[in-house]
Amino acid sequence: MASPDIQICEVGPRDGLQNAKHLMPTEAKKVWISALAAAGVTEIEVGSFVPPKLIPAMADTGELVAHGRSIAGLTVVALAPNLKGFQCALEAGAHKVTFPVSASRAHSQSNVRMSPEDMIAQVRQCVVLRDAQPSNRRPQIEGAVATAFGCTLQGAVSEDDVVRFATLLAEAGCDAVALADTVGYGNPAQVKRVFRRVREAVGRRLEGAHFHNTRGLGLANALAAYEEGVRSFDSSMGGLGGCPFAPGASGNVITEDLVFMFEAMGVSTGIDLEKLFKAREVMVQALPGEPVYGHTAMAGLPKGFRQAA
Amino acid sequence: MASPDIQICEVGPRDGLQNAKHLMPTEAKKVWISALAAAGVTEIEVGSFVPPKLIPAMADTGELVAHGRSIAGLTVVALAPNLKGFQCALEAGAHKVTFPVSASRAHSQSNVRMSPEDMIAQVRQCVVLRDAQPSNRRPQIEGAVATAFGCTLQGAVSEDDVVRFATLLAEAGCDAVALADTVGYGNPAQVKRVFRRVREAVGRRLEGAHFHNTRGLGLANALAAYEEGVRSFDSSMGGLGGCPFAPGASGNVITEDLVFMFEAMGVSTGIDLEKLFKAREVMVQALPGEPVYGHTAMAGLPKGFRQAA
Repeated sequence: MASPDIQICEVGPRDGLQNAKHLMPTEAKKVWISALAAAGVTEIEVGSFVPPKLIPAMADTGELVAHGRSIAGLTVVALAPNLKGFQCALEAGAHKVTFPVSASRAHSQSNVRMSPEDMIAQVRQCVVLRDAQPSNRRPQIEGAVATAFGCTLQGAVSEDDVVRFATLLAEAGCDAVALADTVGYGNPAQVKRVFRRVREAVGRRLEGAHFHNTRGLGLANALAAYEEGVRSFDSSMGGLGGCPFAPGASGNVITEDLVFMFEAMGVSTGIDLEKLFKAREVMVQALPGEPVYGHTAMAGLPKGFRQAA
Repeated sequence: MASPDIQICEVGPRDGLQNAKHLMPTEAKKVWISALAAAGVTEIEVGSFVPPKLIPAMADTGELVAHGRSIAGLTVVALAPNLKGFQCALEAGAHKVTFPVSASRAHSQSNVRMSPEDMIAQVRQCVVLRDAQPSNRRPQIEGAVATAFGCTLQGAVSEDDVVRFATLLAEAGCDAVALADTVGYGNPAQVKRVFRRVREAVGRRLEGAHFHNTRGLGLANALAAYEEGVRSFDSSMGGLGGCPFAPGASGNVITEDLVFMFEAMGVSTGIDLEKLFKAREVMVQALPGEPVYGHTAMAGLPKGFRQAA
C-alpha cells in the first residue's frame, strides 16, 4: 500500500473530551479509539497528562496510551503541559508528545501558568530527558505554537512572535513544529502567510496544522495550509472540543468533513469514510446529549462517490 | 468610495425562502431586503417568477422587485425558469434575470421540465426579447449552469457538458455565466478545474459562483473559486435554503461567514458585518422555528477585528 498523501491526527479523545459535558467511560474511549484505528486513522491524540483534579476527563490517559500501543500501526500521541506531564508520557510509552506553547502571553499564563519562554525552557529539558532514554523509549516531541492566529484574551497575536517561538521550539530540539488556531480566529490568507514564514524559519520541521471551526473557516484554512505545503492535520470527530461560545459554533475542524474534502479532491488520507462514520456512531453512543457536528456524515456521501486511494 | 474587491449576491429571499418551512409575509421580506441593503449588500435575488401554485413562497416576487427598485444602488435579481417567467421579470423591472440550466439531464427535467438544450433555446429567445425593449428596460441576463459539480439524481456530471452548456449560454447572448453547485457535491480541486475550463471557453463572461454547504465545503469552495479569479459569489443569510437532507446539513453558503472570511483576508465586500448581523435578526424574527446557521454570527467577531475596507 502506498502512503497516503496526507496524515490526519484525530484529537477528539483529547481536545474533544476535555471540553465535553460528560465524562466518557474509559472502556468506551478504548472502543472508540479502536474503531478510529479500524477506519484507517494512524495517529490519535488519546489524552493529556495533566493533574486529574484540573481536568478529570483526562485522568485515564496512561491507560489509553497503553491501549493505543496495543493497536498495530497506530501512533499514540499525548499532550504534556510541562516536564511532569512529559515524565508521565514517557512512563506510559506515548509515541509522540505534543507541547502547547501559546504565542499569546495572556493565553500562555491561563493555559500552562508560564510565559512562552518558560514553557520553551521546559520543552528543552524534556528533549534532554528524552535523549537520555533507551533508544526504544524515545518519543517524538512536537512543539505546537498555540493561539498562533489570534487570542480571545489579547486579540491579535504578533506574527513575528509566532515565527520566533516556532524557531525557539525547533532550536530546543523538537522533531516537529505545529501551528494551532486555538480559538478559530484564523483566515486563509493569514494561514498561508504565517505557515510560509514559519517554514522559511524552521524548514521541514514545520509539520502540523490544528484548526478550529469556531467561525466556520476550518476547512478553508485547512485547504489554505494544504496549498502552502502542509501535509499533517489535526481534527476532531464530530467537531468535538474547542471553545464553543455558542450552540453551532463548533470546536475543532470536523474529521469526517476534512477527510471527505481531501478524498474528494483526490488527496488520499488512508481513512475509509464509511468505517469512519461507524466510529462516529460509537462516539455518539458513548456521549449522550453532546452536540455533535458533521455535514458529510449527516448528508451522506455523494451518489457514486469514490475515495482517492 | 472604492469598489469592493468582490461582489456578493444575497439569494436568501429566493433560494432560502423557497425551501423554508413557513411563508415569510411580504412586508417582512421587504423589511429584511431593506436591512440587507442597509448593511451594504448591493445585489439581492428577491424571488423567482414561477407559478405560485408550484412555489407559493415566490408569489410576491413582482412586489419585491418593485420594493427592491425603490432602494438606491441595489441591483434587483430574479430567477426565471422559462420565457414566461422572463416576461414577468421584464414587466416587474428586474435589473438582472438569472436562468438555471442544469448540466444534469435528470435534474433539468425535474427542475424546469425541459432538456438543457431546450432551456438554452428559451434563454436565447429571452435575449432577443430583451434586446427589443427600450434601452432603460433591458435587464442583464445570467445563465447559471446548475448541478455543475454533481447531481443527487444522476451522480457525477460531465465536466465537458458543463463547459459546453456554459459556452452555449454565452453564445446565446448571456451577459454573465455562473456555475452552481446546486447539491453541495463540489470540492476545491474540482472547483478550480471546472472554473478554469469554463473561463478558457467563455472568457470574462464567467462571473458567478453559487455554492451549497451540504457537506461543509462551501467556504473552502468559495476560497478555491476566488483563487481561480472569481469575484462574484451567491450566498444566503443564515445558510437558508438548498437541499437540507438532514439537520445540520445546511443549504447555501452562509452569507455572514462568507463575508467574514473575505473581510478577514483583507478582501473587501462592501458589507458591514455588524449591520449584517442586524439584518440576520430581522430574518430570524420573521421565520420563527426555521433552522438558521452561521458560525460567525453565533461566535461573534474576533476581539479587535477590523474589516478590510
